[in-house]
Amino acid sequence: MININTDHLKQINPFEFTQSLSTAVRKFKDVHSNLPMFRLQENLKKVLAYGHLAEKTKERFTDIVLLGTGGSSLGAQVLCKLSRLEDDIRIHFFDNIDPLTFKHFWEKSRLETTLFLVISKSGTTPETLTQAIIAIARVESVVGKNRISDHFIVVTEPKSSPLKKLADRYGFMCIDHDQGIGGRFSALSLVGLLPAMLMSVPVDRVISGAQTLYTEFLLNPETHPITESVGLMHQTAQTLNLTQTVFMTYVDQLEPLGRWFRQLWAESLGKNGKGTTPINATGTVDQHSQLQLYLDGPKDKLFTLITHPLNWVGDQVSTEISHAIGFEDMSGRTMGDLMQAEQSATIQVLKNNTRPTRIIEITEVSPEVVGALMMQLILETLLTADVMSVNCFDQPAVEQGKILARKYLEKSIG
Amino acid sequence: MININTDHLKQINPFEFTQSLSTAVRKFKDVHSNLPMFRLQENLKKVLAYGHLAEKTKERFTDIVLLGTGGSSLGAQVLCKLSRLEDDIRIHFFDNIDPLTFKHFWEKSRLETTLFLVISKSGTTPETLTQAIIAIARVESVVGKNRISDHFIVVTEPKSSPLKKLADRYGFMCIDHDQGIGGRFSALSLVGLLPAMLMSVPVDRVISGAQTLYTEFLLNPETHPITESVGLMHQTAQTLNLTQTVFMTYVDQLEPLGRWFRQLWAESLGKNGKGTTPINATGTVDQHSQLQLYLDGPKDKLFTLITHPLNWVGDQVSTEISHAIGFEDMSGRTMGDLMQAEQSATIQVLKNNTRPTRIIEITEVSPEVVGALMMQLILETLLTADVMSVNCFDQPAVEQGKILARKYLEKSIG
Repeated sequence: MININTDHLKQINPFEFTQSLSTAVRKFKDVHSNLPMFRLQENLKKVLAYGHLAEKTKERFTDIVLLGTGGSSLGAQVLCKLSRLEDDIRIHFFDNIDPLTFKHFWEKSRLETTLFLVISKSGTTPETLTQAIIAIARVESVVGKNRISDHFIVVTEPKSSPLKKLADRYGFMCIDHDQGIGGRFSALSLVGLLPAMLMSVPVDRVISGAQTLYTEFLLNPETHPITESVGLMHQTAQTLNLTQTVFMTYVDQLEPLGRWFRQLWAESLGKNGKGTTPINATGTVDQHSQLQLYLDGPKDKLFTLITHPLNWVGDQVSTEISHAIGFEDMSGRTMGDLMQAEQSATIQVLKNNTRPTRIIEITEVSPEVVGALMMQLILETLLTADVMSVNCFDQPAVEQGKILARKYLEKSIG
Repeated sequence: MININTDHLKQINPFEFTQSLSTAVRKFKDVHSNLPMFRLQENLKKVLAYGHLAEKTKERFTDIVLLGTGGSSLGAQVLCKLSRLEDDIRIHFFDNIDPLTFKHFWEKSRLETTLFLVISKSGTTPETLTQAIIAIARVESVVGKNRISDHFIVVTEPKSSPLKKLADRYGFMCIDHDQGIGGRFSALSLVGLLPAMLMSVPVDRVISGAQTLYTEFLLNPETHPITESVGLMHQTAQTLNLTQTVFMTYVDQLEPLGRWFRQLWAESLGKNGKGTTPINATGTVDQHSQLQLYLDGPKDKLFTLITHPLNWVGDQVSTEISHAIGFEDMSGRTMGDLMQAEQSATIQVLKNNTRPTRIIEITEVSPEVVGALMMQLILETLLTADVMSVNCFDQPAVEQGKILARKYLEKSIG
């Protein structure tokens, strides 16, 4: 399903099962493996208990709006790309607080048939609360006070908070955010799975893929390719003084995976002056934007490319036309053939230019594979944190900005 | 209209008008200022000559599809965000070659009322040619052979190329791409302006903003804030060994500006082992994703934030509700107030954590301001290239990948 190809990293430095990696693996077995985020079957059950909502949503709504940001939104963005509903129900992710975007949305929206999912672990996220209060007023003006509660579902921790109070005040359905699962680690829990289920994504298959990989890893973590990969990437970064880790996907469906990974890696590892910068890139788009820098700029980046076979996929290029215009390369080939050739070419030129490159080869973009990919990236991040000796689970610096923003708001009232 | 605030950089190191900066400015005056990309009025005229197309497009089409990648697409993506057409005409930017995305598009599209803009400077870009040939077949199957030519406009250099031949074969309208303007510098020429004009963006106002800034700069480049900014950023990067330059916008309308800048900076400067990595970020989204790393990770980044006043913009948060739920901070405030407070807070915490921060304060997001912003970033990139002694105009490394991709395609035909 997933093959991690680290041949190029091994050419740069042979893999060593270092002391710090060994400690990280032991800590995973002894401590992290008990974390609620890895109780996948239990977490799946919690979501499936709301299966009736999926049916109701399909019948009753044309639009779902997810109000939430960071870990409350990005995991769902990845999983909802697996939806086949397309135009039957559209899902909108509002993770910014741009007044103009909201203005346009209110003008065009069909609020009678729109469901709002409001997600905030702490229940105190000011962006999400602001969005929600404003949305309530808008919905109320259209459907009337008595029917607002049909249009909102809240996901937050079961404790007193502004969001909890808001839900209580209006009688919204309020679903528990597991208190033991941090936002950026919540993609494979209810937080990521519920929106996906409402969009008819087979979440059981997502979890099945994640579970298979996790079980396999836990069976023998010392020798699992993920452990080797983490070790090699860390060694390479140390040896070559790398400051950036580029995460390049090709197909559009995986684009949000890069943005989700970006938060996971940056918030988990970026502390105490440590942490490489995660950079998400999309081939073939960024081949026409970033590849020059990647190949010929400073050698300060490690590359991970997610590839999968696309031969024979998509419309064919007419033989007659391609010959007539001097574009024989693509004669009889498909768009997928071209993407496939470009994947291989980019990997090869990265190697030719001695840029450390790791390839994650997937067989297809399926719910199982995406679930497994997310699990892999979570495991890699956790292990890397312990190898680097940073606390994977906090984000102390972000609090500074939140406190200051409150101060500025108060001042502007003053 | 635009104020460049470099106070924080000056605190780190006072500005010096170095020899290399002086040389760069002289080179700009003597050489670069003669480049066709700076003949703004002439370039505007060339676009306005196609003004009738805008009228026709509005009458006849519901959708515009731009087939093109890199510099052939990103500039238009920025400018089209200024469009007020919204749902009257939708523009789709296909810069990737994902067969699944195209499959979905063909299923849902209204090809009878869709106009395809095919843009490639060289006329040899394989992604764009492949997209175009496939689109022609799809359109032909819907509207018939005789009417295909109504649905395609090609922009390419006036010389023999596969794309030119394709246009000739079908009798498509073919508009010249200025041979003297490189793709990533073409946003303020016909390449960026034509799609914008078709989307009813007042391109004269875009050019007016760019022209005002350019004229002002050229009047006295030695003492212009842009020159000072370039010098300070380069000095800071040298002094602190910075490897990354973060470009953070807040409002959704400016999101493509970050992606456009990313190409401009990376392809122009990323060569000979030199070049900082441009990283585009969106506040407030990335405050919940990247800010932890930015504040507490390695001190290897320079920050540029684009801010503008948003006080009193957007819906208000009800005083009654905010008090009832313990969210007094936002009582009576608007969504814009919150974004404004977060802009200020993020700037302050970056400074508090001694992260070198530059602020570009704009008055509003208008065609004039966006035109001026793009001009500023182009000037900064050109000057920086000369300060760094790299050739701003080539992208030699990218060719390697193109050659290899052709080889792999041939092999797969084998």
